[in-house]
Amino acid sequence: MSGRRTVVGVMGGCAAESGTVENARTLGRLIAEHGWVLLSGGRPTGVMQASVDGAKEAGGFTVGVLFDTEHADAAVGLDLVIPTGMGAGRNVINILASDVVVACRGSGGTLSEIALALRFGRPVVLLDFDPGEAFLTACAADARWTLAADPRKAVDAVRGYLEEAGRA
Amino acid sequence: MSGRRTVVGVMGGCAAESGTVENARTLGRLIAEHGWVLLSGGRPTGVMQASVDGAKEAGGFTVGVLFDTEHADAAVGLDLVIPTGMGAGRNVINILASDVVVACRGSGGTLSEIALALRFGRPVVLLDFDPGEAFLTACAADARWTLAADPRKAVDAVRGYLEEAGRA
Amino acid sequence: MSGRRTVVGVMGGCAAESGTVENARTLGRLIAEHGWVLLSGGRPTGVMQASVDGAKEAGGFTVGVLFDTEHADAAVGLDLVIPTGMGAGRNVINILASDVVVACRGSGGTLSEIALALRFGRPVVLLDFDPGEAFLTACAADARWTLAADPRKAVDAVRGYLEEAGRA
Amino acid sequence: MSGRRTVVGVMGGCAAESGTVENARTLGRLIAEHGWVLLSGGRPTGVMQASVDGAKEAGGFTVGVLFDTEHADAAVGLDLVIPTGMGAGRNVINILASDVVVACRGSGGTLSEIALALRFGRPVVLLDFDPGEAFLTACAADARWTLAADPRKAVDAVRGYLEEAGRA
Repeated sequence: MSGRRTVVGVMGGCAAESGTVENARTLGRLIAEHGWVLLSGGRPTGVMQASVDGAKEAGGFTVGVLFDTEHADAAVGLDLVIPTGMGAGRNVINILASDVVVACRGSGGTLSEIALALRFGRPVVLLDFDPGEAFLTACAADARWTLAADPRKAVDAVRGYLEEAGRA
Repeated sequence: MSGRRTVVGVMGGCAAESGTVENARTLGRLIAEHGWVLLSGGRPTGVMQASVDGAKEAGGFTVGVLFDTEHADAAVGLDLVIPTGMGAGRNVINILASDVVVACRGSGGTLSEIALALRFGRPVVLLDFDPGEAFLTACAADARWTLAADPRKAVDAVRGYLEEAGRA
Repeated sequence: MSGRRTVVGVMGGCAAESGTVENARTLGRLIAEHGWVLLSGGRPTGVMQASVDGAKEAGGFTVGVLFDTEHADAAVGLDLVIPTGMGAGRNVINILASDVVVACRGSGGTLSEIALALRFGRPVVLLDFDPGEAFLTACAADARWTLAADPRKAVDAVRGYLEEAGRA
Repeated sequence: MSGRRTVVGVMGGCAAESGTVENARTLGRLIAEHGWVLLSGGRPTGVMQASVDGAKEAGGFTVGVLFDTEHADAAVGLDLVIPTGMGAGRNVINILASDVVVACRGSGGTLSEIALALRFGRPVVLLDFDPGEAFLTACAADARWTLAADPRKAVDAVRGYLEEAGRA
């Protein structure tokens, strides 16, 4: 297919535990192996750096949408660095730019991104992260989300959503 | 006290049910009676319009931070209309501008605002709205939130948080 | 007239010279005397602080839309502080929220605000500041702007634009 | 060189004249031939579409940062589409993401981008567009800008700025 590249957004925290970081790395590798662009918040720590590391191991293309105004202080291995100077305002962009969002275990920033994704009609795959059905169901009437126990199952769910959208 | 006015943000949906709308109106009135500024997303429907109606009944000062670029299409009764042209990007502003946030029953937009509020250290009072402890606890290590069954209890909780901050 | 308050945005730099600062203070006082809300970028220096000082001398209402995420580090005397965390992204809000913009002598930030104002149809009064007709004319086909030599003439021009809009 | 890709931002209007559109197309082609990423506002008209067309003729990589919330209604040929839903708020991102900015003949939106670029230290090449020295000089004390009569001279100036920054 010609046309724009398919983008999978990977959201998650800076201060992630080792299991979460390991999952993010595997996830990044699998995203790259499928030929999808990996987009994240682009910080040089936690889920953001790990997913970029994984994607680059598989030769993928990586984009980081930063809090800050300068290109520096971004994750190592990003192909495209987009400083915004907008702080958490950039969370909206992360979501809108993604065809499908994968949320790794995170906190308030990640949860705001999940809520926005469901509100704007982006499907969300929750990788080893369950913020509760009460929250997920409340986000949108037509919310599409999947709980996935490991990165491989997460990527299966991503592929399913992309096929529904005619993008895989 | 001289200095800036205390701001209570009221978040909630456009398509709210009658009980939620009635709660928002009472909440707005109580906020105004305490002399706090009422800030909302400023749309002319649902929780946003109702909370402004209530505040104006009690002679309060009301601010709306809009999705769109123009002053029109805002809730009737707003004293100050702030168009942003930033769509959901303005959710961040609603939160950051509030000393305390009251979240009425809502969906994705409201839930993203709750998550951002807890992440940025703004206390949140949930008025007849429970998105689940799994979500709330995950938002931030030091998250401060209170479930309130009715507008009067919500305002009691707001006052408590303001007293903690030395603003009441 | 009931309805929302009329907002005059005052734009200008942090590092302004003494004449520019003095003009901003007089301008703020005159805006308040007319009963208009004064809106600025809300920093505690230069044109922003001086215009707030002037407005408060005359008992006006003052709003600051901040670069940063917290209420602190704002101009003294602001009645309403709106942190955005959006950096220069907040320039757009300053403009869209203003019925008329007065631009004091400034640099890149101020000039971007002038360009946005003219592009979004907000009239601009340039107080002792002339960025050149080549720039002003290029901004928009229907751009409305006035060069004013002193604060009193600037406020006369503001009143004229407000009358055209049925707001004075 | 490993590391992130060099980004050249091309700014300009929707309703450009034929000479300006032709220049934008040539500019896009030359940017791609140098291996730089072309970034623009991503609309399917005027300078934005033409620069993307030119870049794709030479096999370049193209990014569009959109006003709106959805991927549709973007320039044809974009490799990466980044909807923001932030309207003119996205102008800031266009600038911050660019290592060097080329401004084609435009109006208020383009002029706000030039002012922001100079204020944030991004060099600007003005292609057949002169908003006047009074404006350009006022933008920033250390502003770096070059007037270029045609696309080839514009790209020479871009290369010079990239060499200064150690990126070419």
